[in-house]
Amino acid sequence: MNGAVELPLGTPELAFEAAGDAFVRRSLLPSGVRVLSERVPGARSATIGFWVAVGSRDEHPAGTGHPATFGSTHFLEHLLFKGTRTRTALEIAVSFDAVGGEHNALTAKEYTCYYAKVQDRDVPMAVEVLADMFTSSLLDPDEFENERGVILEELSMAGDDPADVANERFFEAVLGDHALGRPIGGSPETIRQATREAVHAHYVANYRPQDLVVTVAGAVDHDRIVEALTRALGAAGWDLDLSASPDARRSTSPAPLAPPKPLTVVHRPIEQVNLLLGVPGLVATDDRRSTLSVLNAIFGSGMSSRLFQQVRERRGLAYAVYSFGPAYSDAGLFGMYAGCAPAKAPTVAALMRSELERVAEHGVTEEELSRAAGQLGGASALALEDSDTRMSRLGRAELTLGEFQDLDEALRRIALVTGDDVQALAADFAARPFSLVAVGATDEAAFRGVVDETAPTTDAA
Amino acid sequence: MNGAVELPLGTPELAFEAAGDAFVRRSLLPSGVRVLSERVPGARSATIGFWVAVGSRDEHPAGTGHPATFGSTHFLEHLLFKGTRTRTALEIAVSFDAVGGEHNALTAKEYTCYYAKVQDRDVPMAVEVLADMFTSSLLDPDEFENERGVILEELSMAGDDPADVANERFFEAVLGDHALGRPIGGSPETIRQATREAVHAHYVANYRPQDLVVTVAGAVDHDRIVEALTRALGAAGWDLDLSASPDARRSTSPAPLAPPKPLTVVHRPIEQVNLLLGVPGLVATDDRRSTLSVLNAIFGSGMSSRLFQQVRERRGLAYAVYSFGPAYSDAGLFGMYAGCAPAKAPTVAALMRSELERVAEHGVTEEELSRAAGQLGGASALALEDSDTRMSRLGRAELTLGEFQDLDEALRRIALVTGDDVQALAADFAARPFSLVAVGATDEAAFRGVVDETAPTTDAA
Repeated sequence: MNGAVELPLGTPELAFEAAGDAFVRRSLLPSGVRVLSERVPGARSATIGFWVAVGSRDEHPAGTGHPATFGSTHFLEHLLFKGTRTRTALEIAVSFDAVGGEHNALTAKEYTCYYAKVQDRDVPMAVEVLADMFTSSLLDPDEFENERGVILEELSMAGDDPADVANERFFEAVLGDHALGRPIGGSPETIRQATREAVHAHYVANYRPQDLVVTVAGAVDHDRIVEALTRALGAAGWDLDLSASPDARRSTSPAPLAPPKPLTVVHRPIEQVNLLLGVPGLVATDDRRSTLSVLNAIFGSGMSSRLFQQVRERRGLAYAVYSFGPAYSDAGLFGMYAGCAPAKAPTVAALMRSELERVAEHGVTEEELSRAAGQLGGASALALEDSDTRMSRLGRAELTLGEFQDLDEALRRIALVTGDDVQALAADFAARPFSLVAVGATDEAAFRGVVDETAPTTDAA
Repeated sequence: MNGAVELPLGTPELAFEAAGDAFVRRSLLPSGVRVLSERVPGARSATIGFWVAVGSRDEHPAGTGHPATFGSTHFLEHLLFKGTRTRTALEIAVSFDAVGGEHNALTAKEYTCYYAKVQDRDVPMAVEVLADMFTSSLLDPDEFENERGVILEELSMAGDDPADVANERFFEAVLGDHALGRPIGGSPETIRQATREAVHAHYVANYRPQDLVVTVAGAVDHDRIVEALTRALGAAGWDLDLSASPDARRSTSPAPLAPPKPLTVVHRPIEQVNLLLGVPGLVATDDRRSTLSVLNAIFGSGMSSRLFQQVRERRGLAYAVYSFGPAYSDAGLFGMYAGCAPAKAPTVAALMRSELERVAEHGVTEEELSRAAGQLGGASALALEDSDTRMSRLGRAELTLGEFQDLDEALRRIALVTGDDVQALAADFAARPFSLVAVGATDEAAFRGVVDETAPTTDAA
């Protein structure tokens, strides 16, 4: 493979080689279901994912006539494990436990994914059970009430984790009223108010054949996956509209954002202050995504990064310190995290900001640039040894990016990034309005001057 | 390979096949250093570990004339990243970051391990840098002061995690004044009092050639590893006592334990109560370790387990609930965890205890037994795809168990476990004195009756 391969929605069949002797195939089934496989020679296990491009961002406030109210996407994810027309919840659990497989699901802001990792011999079973869960879940009313309690406990657990709380508040602060700024799980209030009818309507509306993307990686044979899946979906008695075609992908234009909130302090009587500082970032399809990877590697990833050296190694101010740059279809963030004692928090926040400004003003060295390329290449090579990573990459390629880049292509793009590119992106970020979130035994006054609370805010999208 | 292979301390060379075409070799170098490798055909990366059998349990109170005071093992682990006679801290970090390698260390109760995961071409570099850190670290006084701050932040982060706090208090409650009951990192007080002299004395006393075990797994060639290691250790100008032989392994007889503490409540104004309930368990070399694996699979591991079904699936009382059975050379624990709302905590604690008693009284089904065998076999097969797991297994085999079991042998032992064995072990555990730890917005009175606070305590070792 030379270059990225586009994944046009209506194309029935695609096949191409990927890095490390892997082979990728994509089929559009007559039902509208899309199947992508990546066969890795020598693999003895596989990871299977069932995806829909529906996440928390697609929800609406209760009472607006939309089925998916806040937290209902995650609620539905839980309910798919609770029994189908032919399998009880226990039978679903036993299917995977009995073969020592991993089996779970993930609700994100822009998608939901049900996945399993099993030995090669158990792949047909995994496809069959996941297909049954996807097509034929009962959403039993008693199970619904029971699971409401489980989800409230899950939210409480997250609420007791100060880093989790800081992260949710950071998304709210930077993305404002954009739907991506909301927490994935909803709130205790919306979960207490959720109705089985609304969640069921959400299921019916969004888990149709044309919504489903199945990705598999590892010890897999594409034709057998398609065959097993077709059989399983047929057995489900699913309403197969043979004229269905996949839904269009989301808009990838940066959305206009409201002015970010400069300062958020959540007071908690705990030992550390969990600090997040950052700005609106890049969308997933932005041409500068490779530049962002390089900037993030140099600035805040690994023990040799600027943040680690300045905050931890030279000054001993924090244990955990790093940067990150999540990207979604029409918005993104660039952020820095540190956990430290309350007395050090203003210093750490100011230091993180000034380090970004230093890159913006003075750029990076050739040595850092070449180290970042090595770091990203090596880390990707290690990550791709795991079929989980390959399965996820296929899903994101199909759902969000609309193209598949193998490792060689990704590294080629990384190698083209120049020091000027990195400096320009850092300068762009440094000029955006900053948001600071602090969770811990601190107050607003401590951070005066680190972010400008009174400056006229500008559109930063 | 048929059966477990013993690893006698003085044997110069051993070589044998392991499951999945892997090949294990062990060499005792003239210096006393032990090297174990597991070559996995088709692997493109490797994990390298440098181990010493020194952990927090080997520390002593300050002022008793021993070099290793509470927390100093972990303190030393941090300092090994801070520079050697020929490498600065930044150069060490750059070595691994520049190739995208993973690079970290772990201080445990009975060992310390420095490890790296890299692509095959980078293995010689990893061996060289780890050897340099191990033999030639400076423990620079300025770096010492700086790192004291970092470690205090690390302790604060753990102190803010209620599940972490519950876990530390649980070890203290069950193991009493046994050295394994102490927290690994020491306390803020002992870290504030730590001196560079004491940590340096600990380094000199415990990081000798005969203490070092190097284990590597993945894309490795044993002879080249031995060659690279010999070269790196020679270059270090290490004091090589050619008459040295490896230190004896620890005693594996169960230690007598003081009566466990029945009830520990740590009040915190948080949403969930983090509950741990359990008893003293088995030592790492106990013949019933396979039985414990089966009991734990049936009782508290996976979505089909008794605890998951009873506490979460049927009653919706918790999100996270599981059991665990850590084993050390001369002591162990069997515990159950759940996080839930304060009002539900007494019910959940009583339910966890009664579920264990139900297994003790009524045993398990044949179906559960066969499912557990499948679960343990499948999960092990998936885990062994990762060279990290193989590297760690080699280390534990050499340091603690004194024998190497490959997957086939481990599964053969699992298959021999009977329902009577499982019931007998559950009955043994259920008859031991229980300890309950609760961290959250609750109090002692809530748990009256779940554990007997007034019963005459018995020796449970």
